[in-house]
Amino acid sequence: MNNQPINIQEKLTKFHTFWSPKVVAEMNNYQLKVAKFSGEFVWHKHDDTDEVFLVVKGELTIRMREEDVVLKNGDLFVVPQGVEHCPYAKEECHVILIEPKGVINTGEVKSSLTAENDVWI
Amino acid sequence: MNNQPINIQEKLTKFHTFWSPKVVAEMNNYQLKVAKFSGEFVWHKHDDTDEVFLVVKGELTIRMREEDVVLKNGDLFVVPQGVEHCPYAKEECHVILIEPKGVINTGEVKSSLTAENDVWI
Repeated sequence: MNNQPINIQEKLTKFHTFWSPKVVAEMNNYQLKVAKFSGEFVWHKHDDTDEVFLVVKGELTIRMREEDVVLKNGDLFVVPQGVEHCPYAKEECHVILIEPKGVINTGEVKSSLTAENDVWI
Repeated sequence: MNNQPINIQEKLTKFHTFWSPKVVAEMNNYQLKVAKFSGEFVWHKHDDTDEVFLVVKGELTIRMREEDVVLKNGDLFVVPQGVEHCPYAKEECHVILIEPKGVINTGEVKSSLTAENDVWI
């Protein structure tokens, strides 16, 4: 067992690529990831799972078909399973993502923004 | 669907009882909770699940039988399933907990610190 604390801010200094979530911890079959967002992502959904976004720097808009939600630092939001969404960050923002292991960042959509999965940092 | 962001700090202003986790969100069959810790908790374990601690204020020591881990603001740690632990906060600290719905704060131990489960705030 590795008894070292995992510091979110320190992990975020270790990469600069936007829209490329990095795994920092696992809990059961779930993963906690950190990611940097800037600009507009792609519309997509996750048919099998909810997805948690927790903003730790900046501001994130999660566009959905019915209504947008705007997350500031310290805000979290759970995008329900099957709900189409498109994250958008006018300026760079940093987030913690929580979701089951194996979830692809672009869901059912293949895109140039589809990131390699299960990359630890 | 409730499209309101959930602000962690705002949720933490809504209660003052130590060792009494409050649910702020659900993701699939998992819950995100906020809690305030002060002093020493009880030794316990969770036989069926890992447990995530993410510190958002102050400092938390998670005592374990083999080694302690000290978490500062922005640090997270996953206590593995079945591992005995005893949280300790010399001064008040605030945490986010992530674990499956139904997990009791004192695990297999019944204590005066056993909190009511599934209390939303």
